[in-house]
Amino acid sequence: MESAIPPHLQVSRSRHRRVPDDYKPPYPSFVARHRPAVGSVVMAYFGIQHSPDAPKGLPAALTSLEAVFASANGPRHWDRAAYVDEARYNNTVSVAYWDDRAVFDAWFPAARAAWTGTEAAGLGKFIEVLCPSVNDYETLFSSLGRPEGVAVIADGMSGEVLEHAYWGGMRDRIPLSQTNEMAPVGVPSVVREGRRLRVKPHDNICLIRSGQDWSDTDSAERKMYLEDVEPVLREGMEFLRDEGLAIGCFANRYMTVLDGDGRPTEKSYGMSWWKSLAALERWAESHPTHVRIFGAAMKYLSTLGPAAKLRLYHEVTVTRAADQFFEYLDCHPGTGMLKAVTVEA
Amino acid sequence: MESAIPPHLQVSRSRHRRVPDDYKPPYPSFVARHRPAVGSVVMAYFGIQHSPDAPKGLPAALTSLEAVFASANGPRHWDRAAYVDEARYNNTVSVAYWDDRAVFDAWFPAARAAWTGTEAAGLGKFIEVLCPSVNDYETLFSSLGRPEGVAVIADGMSGEVLEHAYWGGMRDRIPLSQTNEMAPVGVPSVVREGRRLRVKPHDNICLIRSGQDWSDTDSAERKMYLEDVEPVLREGMEFLRDEGLAIGCFANRYMTVLDGDGRPTEKSYGMSWWKSLAALERWAESHPTHVRIFGAAMKYLSTLGPAAKLRLYHEVTVTRAADQFFEYLDCHPGTGMLKAVTVEA
Repeated sequence: MESAIPPHLQVSRSRHRRVPDDYKPPYPSFVARHRPAVGSVVMAYFGIQHSPDAPKGLPAALTSLEAVFASANGPRHWDRAAYVDEARYNNTVSVAYWDDRAVFDAWFPAARAAWTGTEAAGLGKFIEVLCPSVNDYETLFSSLGRPEGVAVIADGMSGEVLEHAYWGGMRDRIPLSQTNEMAPVGVPSVVREGRRLRVKPHDNICLIRSGQDWSDTDSAERKMYLEDVEPVLREGMEFLRDEGLAIGCFANRYMTVLDGDGRPTEKSYGMSWWKSLAALERWAESHPTHVRIFGAAMKYLSTLGPAAKLRLYHEVTVTRAADQFFEYLDCHPGTGMLKAVTVEA
Repeated sequence: MESAIPPHLQVSRSRHRRVPDDYKPPYPSFVARHRPAVGSVVMAYFGIQHSPDAPKGLPAALTSLEAVFASANGPRHWDRAAYVDEARYNNTVSVAYWDDRAVFDAWFPAARAAWTGTEAAGLGKFIEVLCPSVNDYETLFSSLGRPEGVAVIADGMSGEVLEHAYWGGMRDRIPLSQTNEMAPVGVPSVVREGRRLRVKPHDNICLIRSGQDWSDTDSAERKMYLEDVEPVLREGMEFLRDEGLAIGCFANRYMTVLDGDGRPTEKSYGMSWWKSLAALERWAESHPTHVRIFGAAMKYLSTLGPAAKLRLYHEVTVTRAADQFFEYLDCHPGTGMLKAVTVEA
């Protein structure tokens, strides 16, 4: 058993972990490990949206984004997923990861110009970027062997970690929690640059990407996931999408991962933007759908353990305003962090 | 909104609360308030047990206990409840409360001699006492107007408190949590004195008494409680009774409160002895039955709010070994804290 916080990020604590040293989680979980030289990472979401009639320019826009990803200093890993949002717009989101901010900074200006700097008829585009230090985020995986998201660019995975399977484990896995409450400070504002809207959020907004992969499940486990778990998960995701703002969730997207040909896979993830880690904690712990999901997962993983073929993972990040970038071109006003601000016509 | 920790018990923190200052619970709850002069209280459980054939001496023993309670320096409040334990023994437990330890200390020797110092054919007797300082315990009530347990001897009730309706609220309401982890220290031992067995537990064992009162519910709410909530609660109580030891629950009793004539009322409570507050937290947060109960209560109280007629309360105490007393006369070996020790024949 090891701490989710690697030795080189452990500091003298001013804030305590929620569980004692002799805590034993009821099932194994793992976290991504970077080599100590990695100081920060970049998580960049490139979205494109359109109303139900798909504009002709969509495939070309996606192809050109792929070319930008493949250019010098491009991401070490990216994936793509799609969903239909609350305004009935189709959204395709490509998420790219770097483990060197300097490389991203060298790459980004041209990529930005090509994406939100380039209008396309009938298409909205957005870029949402976090550049957290390695102290600012955590990951969690229910099994080894298939990293997702930021873990793909990590150098490996941990052994079984201590800080999971209890409420508060998410916070306890973030190294910064050793000394910092990560409270939100400030108020989001918006800057207009032509047709582009740039949102400047506050310190310590929180992003969660939380995924599931049922591609390996056999028929019984698949049935359990699709009939018992997924509908409850969907209910929770829809609550956040439609009613989240009142509890500090600016936006929630329940995405289906696409394969290289743009076809749906048996993987999905929810991603959401939160006012604070505390707001995410409160929803997770009190909303009936998530409490049910947590209870079901606890029971399921405690019973099946390593025999479970359903794979679960997430990554949760809290960042300072200086490490965030949000820009929207021709998007509808309910898109992403636009919901956090009032945009004057 | 006020803190569950009254101003005169607030100290400079070395340990943080789990929620930020701007946390807003989704429904109101209240705590018992003692006048500041009260430094400690006493919670004393006097039990009597017998196999299914009720011995002739039972009524006389209970009547004599009532006389002892009514004598000088007796408790300011007591109540009585009954249950059938895992060995199929009937148990009647009278719980008495004081808010002045010196008064209890003056009263107790004679009461002890009359109870566990006096054998009665076919009857086992036990005394389980905690004398916590006011820093060592917390209460929580879903409504005002009908105090139970230690709250009956309090001087009043708080307004709406902040620290509730999240996992960790229990700990955050105990004043000692401001500076102390309340970790268990030591190993329980047993001392034989003739036929009496005295268990000497370790520091920071934990007691919870958690009750429900459905006497005011109308037919729809009563049906909901009896058909949807109570069976799940019972399942959790039975798990703790039968399988609790492995997770740090020494004993659990799911009691029906009796009226002055010894008849069952529409009130019940669970009481359990735990190795530590942390062990209680882990069960409450991870066992499917309790997670379901918590989720149902959150939903129920958030929806009905003050209109709910079901009344819920609890009291949770963590004490040093010097503030504990456990003594058993002719009880079966699965009784109370006897399960924490090995008794040689």
